[in-house]
Amino acid sequence: MDDFELACKGLYRALTIREKYMRMALQRFPNTPSQFLRKIEGETWKPEDQVLPVFTPLPKPGEDPFCTKDFPPNLGYVARMKDGVIYVYKDAAAADKHQPLNHPGPDLATFIDDMNFLIALIAQGPTKTYTHRRLKFLMSKFNVHEMLNEMEEMKELKKNPHRDFYNCRKVDTHIHAAACMNQKHLLRFIKKSYRVDADRVVHVLKGKEVTLKELFASLNLHPYDLTVDSLDVHAGRQTFQRFDKFNAKYNPVGASELRDLYMKTENHISGEYFATIIKEVASDLEDARYQYAEPRLSIYGCNPNEWAKLSSWFNKHRVFSPHLKWMIQVPRIYDIFRGRNFVPHFGKMLENIFLPVFQATIDPNSNPELSVFLKHVTGFDSVDDESKHSGHMFSTKSPKPEEWDIVKNPSYTYWIYYMYANIAILNQLRKERGMNTFQFRPHCGEAGAVTHLLACFMTADNISHGLNLKKSPVLQYLYYLAQVPIAMSPLSNNSLFLEYNKNPLLEFHKKGLMVSLSTDDPMQFHYTKEPLMEEYAIAAQVFKLSTCDMCEIARNSVLQSGLSAEEKIHFLGTSYLQDGPEGNDIRKTNVAQIRMAYRYETQCYELNLIREGVMAE
Amino acid sequence: MDDFELACKGLYRALTIREKYMRMALQRFPNTPSQFLRKIEGETWKPEDQVLPVFTPLPKPGEDPFCTKDFPPNLGYVARMKDGVIYVYKDAAAADKHQPLNHPGPDLATFIDDMNFLIALIAQGPTKTYTHRRLKFLMSKFNVHEMLNEMEEMKELKKNPHRDFYNCRKVDTHIHAAACMNQKHLLRFIKKSYRVDADRVVHVLKGKEVTLKELFASLNLHPYDLTVDSLDVHAGRQTFQRFDKFNAKYNPVGASELRDLYMKTENHISGEYFATIIKEVASDLEDARYQYAEPRLSIYGCNPNEWAKLSSWFNKHRVFSPHLKWMIQVPRIYDIFRGRNFVPHFGKMLENIFLPVFQATIDPNSNPELSVFLKHVTGFDSVDDESKHSGHMFSTKSPKPEEWDIVKNPSYTYWIYYMYANIAILNQLRKERGMNTFQFRPHCGEAGAVTHLLACFMTADNISHGLNLKKSPVLQYLYYLAQVPIAMSPLSNNSLFLEYNKNPLLEFHKKGLMVSLSTDDPMQFHYTKEPLMEEYAIAAQVFKLSTCDMCEIARNSVLQSGLSAEEKIHFLGTSYLQDGPEGNDIRKTNVAQIRMAYRYETQCYELNLIREGVMAE
Repeated sequence: MDDFELACKGLYRALTIREKYMRMALQRFPNTPSQFLRKIEGETWKPEDQVLPVFTPLPKPGEDPFCTKDFPPNLGYVARMKDGVIYVYKDAAAADKHQPLNHPGPDLATFIDDMNFLIALIAQGPTKTYTHRRLKFLMSKFNVHEMLNEMEEMKELKKNPHRDFYNCRKVDTHIHAAACMNQKHLLRFIKKSYRVDADRVVHVLKGKEVTLKELFASLNLHPYDLTVDSLDVHAGRQTFQRFDKFNAKYNPVGASELRDLYMKTENHISGEYFATIIKEVASDLEDARYQYAEPRLSIYGCNPNEWAKLSSWFNKHRVFSPHLKWMIQVPRIYDIFRGRNFVPHFGKMLENIFLPVFQATIDPNSNPELSVFLKHVTGFDSVDDESKHSGHMFSTKSPKPEEWDIVKNPSYTYWIYYMYANIAILNQLRKERGMNTFQFRPHCGEAGAVTHLLACFMTADNISHGLNLKKSPVLQYLYYLAQVPIAMSPLSNNSLFLEYNKNPLLEFHKKGLMVSLSTDDPMQFHYTKEPLMEEYAIAAQVFKLSTCDMCEIARNSVLQSGLSAEEKIHFLGTSYLQDGPEGNDIRKTNVAQIRMAYRYETQCYELNLIREGVMAE
Repeated sequence: MDDFELACKGLYRALTIREKYMRMALQRFPNTPSQFLRKIEGETWKPEDQVLPVFTPLPKPGEDPFCTKDFPPNLGYVARMKDGVIYVYKDAAAADKHQPLNHPGPDLATFIDDMNFLIALIAQGPTKTYTHRRLKFLMSKFNVHEMLNEMEEMKELKKNPHRDFYNCRKVDTHIHAAACMNQKHLLRFIKKSYRVDADRVVHVLKGKEVTLKELFASLNLHPYDLTVDSLDVHAGRQTFQRFDKFNAKYNPVGASELRDLYMKTENHISGEYFATIIKEVASDLEDARYQYAEPRLSIYGCNPNEWAKLSSWFNKHRVFSPHLKWMIQVPRIYDIFRGRNFVPHFGKMLENIFLPVFQATIDPNSNPELSVFLKHVTGFDSVDDESKHSGHMFSTKSPKPEEWDIVKNPSYTYWIYYMYANIAILNQLRKERGMNTFQFRPHCGEAGAVTHLLACFMTADNISHGLNLKKSPVLQYLYYLAQVPIAMSPLSNNSLFLEYNKNPLLEFHKKGLMVSLSTDDPMQFHYTKEPLMEEYAIAAQVFKLSTCDMCEIARNSVLQSGLSAEEKIHFLGTSYLQDGPEGNDIRKTNVAQIRMAYRYETQCYELNLIREGVMAE
């Protein structure tokens, strides 16, 4: 078998692996590679084969997004964890015998097999050479396309009435709720809260209730004197390569009390300030009309009540906006919680994170507030400093989550596997019930080992960052072939991990990877009132993006997002699920058909090469 | 004489040359180098030696900025051009005998001598080596300063109440009025004008008056369909190194009719739309509170009536805002006008540009509207593509302006000299009359020969661009020593002459050159609603500027600007004219005193070295 065939066979199998795990979890895998895979297998692809996630549509006019009525009835099922994964059983007896209902989750041994295959593949000489060359070719090909067709693309866009970069929809695909306001906004809010609420009891200090005035006095501060400088939440040169320093920037004036008061959902004022700030951000997005955001709220897994509290906050303050789609972020900080004895083992954390969601899915009326909130949640994120190395190698011999009781954090891959496995089963149950499903959209490839990107290639609908795809041609090419969306945040990277002009965004975009732009943390990184526009403007300037480039990136962001099918049809056109120019409605997206055709033909060409390689014998 | 002495003597003489021409034209030369020059000469510097320009203060509450009363009476003087320079005479008889009043202008022969000395100096080996080393040293020294004091500077700023980067004053020191709105703003304005004014006669097409509707119909356009793309005023990859293409971007939808209608002061609707757009921009600045701009309006020199028409537009539409300071730009396009036989020779152009201003200065009541307008004008700019080479070498043998009747454009230096000479005399006359004076602030060093930077070192209060200082260590060091302000526009450069991350802004700032940030043409270059903030944000991100850096640049912009002394006191502190930390009021500027002390000590050290070199014998 020559090198070409070897590489193609490896890449083929890699794609089938991703396809399998995407289908299992009701996540997306594009039609074009699926069609090629079926062709290789001598089968016919049918449109019904497409697996689609379910997102909750916008409430109809007059409909209350917080309505707790009309939930489906209790199924009486039992959800119980076994080996770190929650299974759904008909009843307790079935649970005791571990006879789960038919929601096939990943099989650990197979998953490890698949993973080991991919680990070998990304280190395999011929495949590295092949993918490196293909990527180089994709780059040169785009440069040629640009030279030949740039003016033609522009001409298409000029002829396209009513639509330009400003009024095509863009989604901020990666933003943390706790930092979704910019520093100036937070400052203004703190000052305003003091003017209105100085005498309100807002906090408990050493067991004693204190007013806002007393709280600031205890910090030796007067909000009237506060400036953006003393607030000190902006990342600067000091945070480069220092994720720890960056995390400390979440504390205004370095005071965790203020973080608690203004940026937490759970505090003495039931997260009222935080809710107000978020609603102000939402109102700015609504005013801007064409901008959307997917803020992340935290579930830590320390306590099974977290979900109830978070959803109570959501309902109480009615934190809903058609311009926001919610995500749950789970920080990978088991080691800290275990160290403080908050949890006995890793399995308990997973249970705290997922069991309440399973229960609310089985019996929505058992926690109507949570059921309302889950309707508006579109996915899970996994967050923390990836550059922290765990030392653990995930294998069939790894302790099961319930046995993982040491203080050390499990590896990134271990975390990702168990989150994925639970989401996969959860999604099947939810789809069965006619409920919305959740996408797995972890932070991945911001730093640390390339294996993170491998784990997410297997499990994640899409990822945030992906910088380290630079380091592995095989993975980069696979992310290209499978069109795995990547939410990139070059301004965040610039303050943390990689200087702006070294950011691979432009390179990835040219090669045809599916990149979108996102802000990550406007509070820490942005200066202007429109952080997402700032992100686009700087990328456009530094990378000299054309309007077509920018609109393509904006279109990617809508596709990647958790916006509902109805919204996507409204923003991208009725055929948005189709690949290639047919799936593009230029009147809505302002992306030239020449560009769409180029992307589609190029992808088909690459996939066809693989087919030829596989069929060569 | 060793190399060190040789270099120091040359630099000393260069500084005295600039000092002389600055004083002559009532332009600024900082105290610190003046003090060292006096010390070298064995004289004592006195505060009275400082020459100050005069800017019109803001109207007092209730005062009308357009009031045409209370102008001083007619002096009865005669202003007449001789050899390209306008002199002021007691009466016609004195004019006939060329016995001008005592307003000493530059002497051409001396000027050429001085210029030739500087031309030799910037090519002189030892001086090149010396200045190159000093600049390298300044760079390293700043890096060390930064490493040692960055946290201390930040601490100072954190302790400084009420003031941060957002609320310290910044002036957009270089912006063209015709492109001062962003593309989205212009688009919105065009659409609105059509909704309101479709049936209004706005233009004359082939001798026939046409309505707005008919005008758009003749262009095969409907404003309702217009987008930012079809408007096509934004610079892109196509404009890089193509100033000609860039200039064409001033025409919306490529139609010069629309440029005439929306971006000219003189048209069938008396420039009403243009005035409205500018007033909208001003109102945005007023809302932003801390931002100011110095827009340029054109005087071409084709016709002596231009001033009357421009000032009539200004007064008619009451285009005044406390946030705008006006500048006059003179495009260096004699060749075009001469080619079309609009002017007989270059002298006539100079006369058209300057004589009306002399006359309004001698007898303000002869043209009250012009006199009002001139009160609000703070300086002259010289604009055009510097990369166009003229081939002419300015010397004592050059034809006098009145003899320059060929179609070829005079050289940059020739243009600069004659503009300077007229401004110098004009300023003396105006100061005598208690009127405001004008700064000469040409575009310089954006492209073309380094001699442009040499000419402006002799004549300009401050310049726009200065990129080419990269190419001459001697000039760069002289600009540093004399603290010649440079309005830099890296986003403009990025679209026209130099990629963003190659821009020398950061390098110049670190070395201590006095740089400010400006937008040049928001219509062509910027994406967001706040172009100046976009400019600062991108520089901060790409160059990783600290808050102290940004506030220092903002402070420089106020110093460089034509804001009145009263405003500067308000924005920078009462001692703003003093050099060093004493001249800085951190409460107003948010610039750390450590930074100010560093800059001052460093400058003194460099000047002292020169003193030692000169005194060595």
